[in-house]
Amino acid sequence: MRWARIERNGSPSYAVVEGDTVIPVRGSPFDAWERTPERLKRDAVKLLVPVIPPTFYAAGMNYPEHVREVAEKVGQAPNLPTRAEIGYRANNALIAHNETIVIPADATEQVQYEGELVVVIGRKCKNLTRENALSAVLGYTIGNDVSERTWQKQDRTMWRSKNTDTFKPMGPWIETNVKLDDLVTRIRLNGEPMIAFATNHMIFGVVDYLVAMTTRLTLHPGDVIWMGTEGATANIRHGDRVDIEITGIGTLSNPVVREGFDRPLG
Amino acid sequence: MRWARIERNGSPSYAVVEGDTVIPVRGSPFDAWERTPERLKRDAVKLLVPVIPPTFYAAGMNYPEHVREVAEKVGQAPNLPTRAEIGYRANNALIAHNETIVIPADATEQVQYEGELVVVIGRKCKNLTRENALSAVLGYTIGNDVSERTWQKQDRTMWRSKNTDTFKPMGPWIETNVKLDDLVTRIRLNGEPMIAFATNHMIFGVVDYLVAMTTRLTLHPGDVIWMGTEGATANIRHGDRVDIEITGIGTLSNPVVREGFDRPLG
Repeated sequence: MRWARIERNGSPSYAVVEGDTVIPVRGSPFDAWERTPERLKRDAVKLLVPVIPPTFYAAGMNYPEHVREVAEKVGQAPNLPTRAEIGYRANNALIAHNETIVIPADATEQVQYEGELVVVIGRKCKNLTRENALSAVLGYTIGNDVSERTWQKQDRTMWRSKNTDTFKPMGPWIETNVKLDDLVTRIRLNGEPMIAFATNHMIFGVVDYLVAMTTRLTLHPGDVIWMGTEGATANIRHGDRVDIEITGIGTLSNPVVREGFDRPLG
Repeated sequence: MRWARIERNGSPSYAVVEGDTVIPVRGSPFDAWERTPERLKRDAVKLLVPVIPPTFYAAGMNYPEHVREVAEKVGQAPNLPTRAEIGYRANNALIAHNETIVIPADATEQVQYEGELVVVIGRKCKNLTRENALSAVLGYTIGNDVSERTWQKQDRTMWRSKNTDTFKPMGPWIETNVKLDDLVTRIRLNGEPMIAFATNHMIFGVVDYLVAMTTRLTLHPGDVIWMGTEGATANIRHGDRVDIEITGIGTLSNPVVREGFDRPLG
């Protein structure tokens, strides 16, 4: 089942996506809901960020090749995580499928995509076990953890390297019917294949994180956990389009502009 | 003016606090609101966390003596921040005035309070100037940035050292009428004065942070910024009560228990 959040009469509404048809619902997937009689064309609706999380979690370094690549870029020794220690991102930076990533005028050229699986929590939970952890998951969506590498190297926190407005595209929707081991992540830049990797070949998997996190903290409906990316990432520039596809979920696609860049697109 | 969030007929409601009287309102201070005819006694209402922030910001190291104290505790050289680089905390950890800080059974003895001024954002804003920055502030409340120092030292992130459930008391209410330079923070442990400091003697002040942050990010109504603490902090134990008073705002008071500790209180 596919859950989208759409703009309808100027307000956000949840909707079920079935093929090319979008069916608005009353309520939300995190609570009671029922279908309305409306049927919309997928191309005719504006997709919103599929959920505004109460807390926005991110695994950060969670694939072995990516740890080595980033360590090299920021000039540090690679440091593979030995425990599932979760980090954070910020809601201000979220944008939806097809919305524009805006690179600040004074950012360097080292602004890069990171294609990530996103876990969406469905119910309040604590002290999950390996056996019941996945029952707390509503479904999965896709994130692009856009990062300015020179700021990431210079700063004490990730406030501007990763949380500048528009640096966290998430969507297009939440897919509830997912077999993690079957997933493949494919990243394309202007249609050109950049990398493909087995989405579930993480250092610490979804169950590892859910169990570790909930020893200390309560997860709430709508919380999201971004699971990290694999391999090398590349710079994105004014006029580019980044597609993050995860098989069985969909494709998150966003155009890129640089602020104050006045050369016409195309 | 004092804004509280209270539990009323099982649901959260905003209310104006005038002396010992609490006046529920329809609406919220972040939007349109009007007083209801109800008048409640302050002692008879349950105060909630005064706002659930869309993004939970924290300055972290922002007072010179505290930087030196913590550096010593975690075994690193003191590293005074040279720029207003904001960090983050997590909503799962928030509790209200009078709610209980629960120390996990396997935490060390090094669990400590940190008394902080909290800025509450009143309107959507970006690119604030030094002149208009404070106009984006609805008011101020108080936070206790409870921290487990051994986890803070060991871990790659602050997920459990600072964001364990119940580790972020915030309240009791939001005071809108504040002169920052007049404020004094006083911390008491079981009624015993521990430290007093001029709240506004920060390395980077409220205006510094608001201007720096909004060069990159949009602040939203209800976002909170915890401004850091000064000086040494002390361990808190099962049976303790921590009071953080900031003159002109109020007192945030929370009891402490240790999970699995069965010695009777008192």
